[in-house]
Amino acid sequence: MIKVVMDCFGGDGSPRANADGAIAALGKNADLYMILSGDEAQIKEALSGKKYPAERLEILHAPTVIGCDEKPTEAIRAKRDSSMMAAAELLRTDETVAGMVSVGSTGALIAATTLRVGRLPGVMRPAFCPILPTMTGGIVGICDSGAVVDCSPEMLKQFAVMGSVYLQSAFGIESPRAALLNIGTESEKGDKLRKETYPLLEQLEGVNFVGNMESRDLLTGKYDLIVCDGFSGNVLIKTTEGACLEMLKMLKKNIYSSWKYKLGALLQKKMFSQIKEFMNYQNYGGSVILGARKTVVKGHGSSDARAIEVCIDQVCRAENARMNEKISEALSGHTAS
Amino acid sequence: MIKVVMDCFGGDGSPRANADGAIAALGKNADLYMILSGDEAQIKEALSGKKYPAERLEILHAPTVIGCDEKPTEAIRAKRDSSMMAAAELLRTDETVAGMVSVGSTGALIAATTLRVGRLPGVMRPAFCPILPTMTGGIVGICDSGAVVDCSPEMLKQFAVMGSVYLQSAFGIESPRAALLNIGTESEKGDKLRKETYPLLEQLEGVNFVGNMESRDLLTGKYDLIVCDGFSGNVLIKTTEGACLEMLKMLKKNIYSSWKYKLGALLQKKMFSQIKEFMNYQNYGGSVILGARKTVVKGHGSSDARAIEVCIDQVCRAENARMNEKISEALSGHTAS
Repeated sequence: MIKVVMDCFGGDGSPRANADGAIAALGKNADLYMILSGDEAQIKEALSGKKYPAERLEILHAPTVIGCDEKPTEAIRAKRDSSMMAAAELLRTDETVAGMVSVGSTGALIAATTLRVGRLPGVMRPAFCPILPTMTGGIVGICDSGAVVDCSPEMLKQFAVMGSVYLQSAFGIESPRAALLNIGTESEKGDKLRKETYPLLEQLEGVNFVGNMESRDLLTGKYDLIVCDGFSGNVLIKTTEGACLEMLKMLKKNIYSSWKYKLGALLQKKMFSQIKEFMNYQNYGGSVILGARKTVVKGHGSSDARAIEVCIDQVCRAENARMNEKISEALSGHTAS
Repeated sequence: MIKVVMDCFGGDGSPRANADGAIAALGKNADLYMILSGDEAQIKEALSGKKYPAERLEILHAPTVIGCDEKPTEAIRAKRDSSMMAAAELLRTDETVAGMVSVGSTGALIAATTLRVGRLPGVMRPAFCPILPTMTGGIVGICDSGAVVDCSPEMLKQFAVMGSVYLQSAFGIESPRAALLNIGTESEKGDKLRKETYPLLEQLEGVNFVGNMESRDLLTGKYDLIVCDGFSGNVLIKTTEGACLEMLKMLKKNIYSSWKYKLGALLQKKMFSQIKEFMNYQNYGGSVILGARKTVVKGHGSSDARAIEVCIDQVCRAENARMNEKISEALSGHTAS
C-alpha cells in the first residue's frame, strides 16, 4: 500500500480537478491510498456522485488555503490550518505516508518541504526537477528549476547526483547524460559558478557528466539532465514554455488570416492536435522536489485531473523505485569520498 | 561621410558575404565609406567582377584570422595581424572611423573592444544588446546577452541606461519599457543580484522601469528592453532561438509524414515563408556592444550579405543618432546623482 496525501486547493481547477485526479489514480492503482487535505465540505462536494473506492480515500480537514500572492515563509507559519500545511504536517509525522502532491503556491511548497518535511541526510538544499519532452521523443530533466536561486558549486554537484538518481529510478534511464547549463560548450566557458562547478562534475563518480550545454540544445534529445542554478533553470524552462506557446499562437493567428491557410490547417487537424498533445506539459507530470525526506510533487497551477493523476503516479513510481533511499546512498558516497 | 571598418573574416560565408554586404550597404548609402580588413588577395577576389563605388571602399591588409576556438585574450594578443585586430586597431587610432562590424569570434571581439577600442567614460563593462522580433510586430532588446557573465547590481543599472538610450536613438522608441529578468513579477522575487538591483532600477531617472519580467513573456511585446546579467541573458536568447527552431523542425517532420499534411502545407506555403522571414534573425541585425567608445556590431557567424548589410546600417544609425554621446551623457547624469 502506498499512501499519498494531496493538497486539494491552490490550483485553478481546485478542488474538483484534484478530486477527479485522485479518483482516476485510485482506479488505476489498487495499491494506492489517498488522503485529500482541505476544506472537508468542499472536498465532499467535489467527490459527490463520483464512484471511487471509499476504503482507500480519506479527507484531512484543513479550512484555509495559502494563496500564490502570500509570502511563503510567513504563510507557512501563519496558516498551519491550510490544506498545504496540513498535508505537509501529515507527511512529516506519519511515517506510513510516502509522499505529497500540491498544485498550490510554489514558494510555500518549497518552504514547507524544506522546513516541515525536512531534507534527506546530507542534502544542502532540495531542488525542483521538472521534465520536458524532447523533439526526439525522449525526456529531459532540469535540476534546479527555481527552488534555489543562489547556488554554490557544491549544491550544483548535489543537483547532478539527485537528478541522475531520479531519472534512473523513476524513468529507467540507465546512465542519464548530465550536462551543465552554460553559455558555450567549451570547458572553460561561463561565469564564476560554472567555472568552479565544471571540475567538480568532471570528477563526480556515478554521474555521467557529458560537459557543458548551450541552452539552444535543450530540446534536441542530446541530454537527459540539465544541471543549473534555480535562477537560470527557471529562465530556461519558462523561456522554452513561452517561445513554444507564442509560436503556436502566431501560427494560429496566421492560419486564421486566410481561407486558404484555414483549409490547409483543416487537412492538418490531426497533426496539430498530436503536436499539442505532445507539448502538453500536463502529460509529463509535475516537478519533483528532490532531496526532501519524502517525495513531494509540485503540479502546475492549471493542472487538470489528468495532470494530477500523473503527479500522483510520480510519487508511486519514486516510492516503488526507492528513490529517496538511493539519493541518500549516492550522496553519502560522495560526501565520504 | 560615415566611415565603417569591417572585419571580413571569421564568419561561415566570409569573406564573400562580408564583401557583398558592404557593396549592398554602399549602394544604399551614398554617405558611407567602407574599410574591409583581412587578407587583401582574398578580399580582392571576393570583390572581383562586382560593381561598387571604388572611391568609397578600401582594403586594410591583415593576413591572419582569429578562430572561434581560440582563447579570446590570448588570441587578441598573439594575432595583432588578424582581420579583427587590424580593424579594432584602426577603430582605436583613427578618429574618423565611426564603428566596426565583425562576424568573427564573439569572445575575441568583446575582448578587443574592451581592451583596444576602450570604453566610454564611466562605463564599467561594455554589454551586448541583441534585438529580437516580438509576436506583436515590435522588437525587444536584451542587455546583456553574454558579454559580462558575473555582474554587480551597478552593472545591471548601467545596462538599463545604455539599452534604453540605444532603443531610443537607433529605433525611435520614445520611452522604452525596461524590465528586469526575474523568476517572478513580484518585486521581492529573485536571487541576491536581482533583489539588490530592483531598488536601483526603481530609483533610476530617465529609465522607464516597469518591474520584473518572467522569461515566458519575452516575445509577447509587453517589454522593449530586458535587463539581465550576461549568463541568464545568454540562456534567454539561446533558449528562444532553440525552442523556435525545434518547433519548426518538428512541424516540418510532421508535415512530411503524410500526403494530406503536405497538401495542407502547400496551401500555407506563403504563410510559412512569411513566418520564416519574420523569425530570420538576419533581418534584425547584430548585437551592438553598448558602452564601447565607438559603435561595434557583432553579427551572427552565419550572416549572409543581407545580414551584414543590416549590421553596417546599425553603425550608421547609431552614428546619426549620436548614440555614444547620449550614453555618456545619460551615464554621467547617473554617476553624478
